[in-house]
Amino acid sequence: MIRRLGPVVALIASTLAAQPQRIVSPEVHGDRRVTLRLRAPNAKEVLASGEFVPKPVPMTRGAEGIWSLTTEPLSPDIYGYTFRVDDLVINDPSNASIKAGINATQSLFTVPGDTAALYDEQDVPHGVLHRHHYRSKAIGDTRAFVVYTPPGYSADGKAKYPVLYLLHGSGDLPTSWSDTGKAHFILDNLIAQGKAKPMIVVMPFGHAVRSTERTPANRGRNLELFAKDLLGDVMPSVEAAYRVHTDRKNRAIAGLSMGGGQSLSAGFSHPEKFAWVAGFSSSVPDNLPIKATDQFRWIAIGRDDFLIENNRKLDAALKAAGVKYSYQETEGAHSWRVWRRYLADLVPLLFR
Amino acid sequence: MIRRLGPVVALIASTLAAQPQRIVSPEVHGDRRVTLRLRAPNAKEVLASGEFVPKPVPMTRGAEGIWSLTTEPLSPDIYGYTFRVDDLVINDPSNASIKAGINATQSLFTVPGDTAALYDEQDVPHGVLHRHHYRSKAIGDTRAFVVYTPPGYSADGKAKYPVLYLLHGSGDLPTSWSDTGKAHFILDNLIAQGKAKPMIVVMPFGHAVRSTERTPANRGRNLELFAKDLLGDVMPSVEAAYRVHTDRKNRAIAGLSMGGGQSLSAGFSHPEKFAWVAGFSSSVPDNLPIKATDQFRWIAIGRDDFLIENNRKLDAALKAAGVKYSYQETEGAHSWRVWRRYLADLVPLLFR
Repeated sequence: MIRRLGPVVALIASTLAAQPQRIVSPEVHGDRRVTLRLRAPNAKEVLASGEFVPKPVPMTRGAEGIWSLTTEPLSPDIYGYTFRVDDLVINDPSNASIKAGINATQSLFTVPGDTAALYDEQDVPHGVLHRHHYRSKAIGDTRAFVVYTPPGYSADGKAKYPVLYLLHGSGDLPTSWSDTGKAHFILDNLIAQGKAKPMIVVMPFGHAVRSTERTPANRGRNLELFAKDLLGDVMPSVEAAYRVHTDRKNRAIAGLSMGGGQSLSAGFSHPEKFAWVAGFSSSVPDNLPIKATDQFRWIAIGRDDFLIENNRKLDAALKAAGVKYSYQETEGAHSWRVWRRYLADLVPLLFR
Repeated sequence: MIRRLGPVVALIASTLAAQPQRIVSPEVHGDRRVTLRLRAPNAKEVLASGEFVPKPVPMTRGAEGIWSLTTEPLSPDIYGYTFRVDDLVINDPSNASIKAGINATQSLFTVPGDTAALYDEQDVPHGVLHRHHYRSKAIGDTRAFVVYTPPGYSADGKAKYPVLYLLHGSGDLPTSWSDTGKAHFILDNLIAQGKAKPMIVVMPFGHAVRSTERTPANRGRNLELFAKDLLGDVMPSVEAAYRVHTDRKNRAIAGLSMGGGQSLSAGFSHPEKFAWVAGFSSSVPDNLPIKATDQFRWIAIGRDDFLIENNRKLDAALKAAGVKYSYQETEGAHSWRVWRRYLADLVPLLFR
C-alpha cells in the first residue's frame, strides 16, 4: 500500500518508524503551571532540577516511557532547568531554548505574566548589541566583549553617554548578560519608561585564566589579569570606538558572582575611575580595599544564596569602616532570576 | 576520617558521591581522530550521529556504563553531532559547545589542521557584529538581524561599502551565520589576506511564517512575506544606519537551503536591486523567474545533498534559458561544513 501511495508516503512512514512521536516540553499552561516531559523508557529514575525548585524533583513514569512533572503555578520569570536520567545530566531534548555557558548548558522556559516583563522584547525603541573580537595585550589571547548602545545612539552624533561595565559569572560567556540576562531589553524598557538614563553597557569576558586551569590558588591571578585587560584593553577600545564620557562620574562597574567580586575589586581599588560600584551575589575577594570614598556602592544578595555569609562579612566591614553604601538581602538564590531583577533595580539609580 | 579532615574534604566527598567522575567528550587527538563518550549505564543502545559520518554509528559500552566511539582521522573542520540513547536524541552533556537552532540544538567539535582555517579566530584585524532588534511592518512582529562591519569601518568615516545579504536555513536563527557559520571570521581572514573586498554582511531572520505553523502549503507565503520584510524593513534600516552603497552593483544576496531558495527568488525577481545572486544547497522554489539578465549567478550543491535533483533541474532550466551562471557540484551533504566553504569560495568573487 505504501508503494502505491508513492515515495512521499513511504518517506513519512519510514520517518515515523525511526522517530517516535514528538514530545511537547516544556508546556506552559495558562495558569502558570509548567509541564516538563522526557521520553526515557529504560531509565530507573528521572529528576528535574532548576531555578523553579530548591532541590531536584522526581518525575513520574507514564505511558510509553514518557516521564513528566507538572509544577505548581510559578511566578512570571525565565527559568533554567536540566533533567537527570539515572547518572546522566542532560538538557531537555525537546526544547531548543538554551542558556549557553562556558562549561555547561541548560534548557530555559519562560512563564509569562499578565503584563510584559522588563526582560521581554517589547514594542519600544531598541538599542543595538555590538560584539567586538580583539586581541588582549594583558592576557595574550583573542577574546570578545559585547556593547549595548541605547536607542537613538549615533556614532556621528553629538551626544555622549555614560558607561556601565557589566560583568558576568564564572559559568558564563561575554554574551551571557545579553542572551541570558536580557540586559539589552531591560535597558530598552527602562529607557522607554523614562526610568533610566540612556547609557552604554559594556559586557567583557571575565575569564582571564582559562576556567580549566582555575584553582582556588590562582583566583587572585584571574582577578588581577582581568582588571589589567579591562583597564588596559577594553576601556581604551570602548572609549575610542564609542561616544562615551570618560570621567569617573560617568563610569559604573557592576557584576554578578565572580563578576561581582571583580567589580567590587576593580571599583574599590579605582575610585578615580569609577564613581558607581555594584556587586550582585558577589564572590567577595579577600583583601578588598575598604576605604571611605564618595563612591556609590550597591550590594545585593539573595537570602538563599550560598555566598550569603561572604556578603554579610562585607556588610560588616563596610559598616565598621563608616563608608557610605547600600546593602540588601532579597528573596532568591544564586540565579539569573535574581540578577535580571538586580540589574533592573540598579540601572535607574545610576548617573543621577 | 572525613570529619577529622574538615568541611572542605567532606564537601568534596559528598560532591564525588553525588556527581560521578567527569567524562571527557569530545577528546580530539593529535592525529585528528576524535573520541566521543557518554555515561548511560541503563541504555540498551547508544548511537552517535553527525557531520562526521553519513549514518548513525553504534557506540560501545565500556566500564561503569560509559559508551564511547573513536572516529577515523577526520578532515580539519567543525562538526555537529548528537547521541541517540535508545529513543532519546540528546546533545553531548559533557560538551558546552553547541549549535543553537530554532527547533533543536546540536553539540560541536572542531578538528584543527596544521594551519589555521578560514573560519578560525586568527590574529588579524577583526570586524564587528551588530545585532538589531526591530519591529517588522511586513510581518507584524519584533525580530532581529545581524550586521557584520569590516575592520576599519567607521560610521563617521567617508568610505562606503558594498553589502552582501546572507540568509540562513530553516533550522536556523539570525545568529546562525555568525555563531555556526563563522561568517565574521571568514570575512576577517579573507580581507586580511587581500582576497575579499571589505564589505558589510547583513544576516536577517528567514522565518516570516512561524516554523510551527509551516506547512508545504504555506511555503510560498513564507517566501513572499520574507521578501517583503527584507526589501521593505531590513534593507531601508541597513541603508539608514550604515555607510553602504545602494546601487545594484554593490548589492549581493546569497543563502543556504531555505535561504538559498529565498535568495534565488528575491535575486532573480529583482535584478534591478541585486547584481549578485548565489544559492548554497538551495531549496529551489517553483516558478523562479528565469530570464536572461547581466546578473552574476552562482549555484553550488553537495553531491550527497538530498536537494541535488532540485538543483540539477535548476541547472537545466538556466542552461535552456541561455543565461549566464555558474553551477557546481562539490563533495559533501546538506551541512554547515559545506556552507562555510561555499561562503569562503563566493566572497572573493563579489563586487569585482
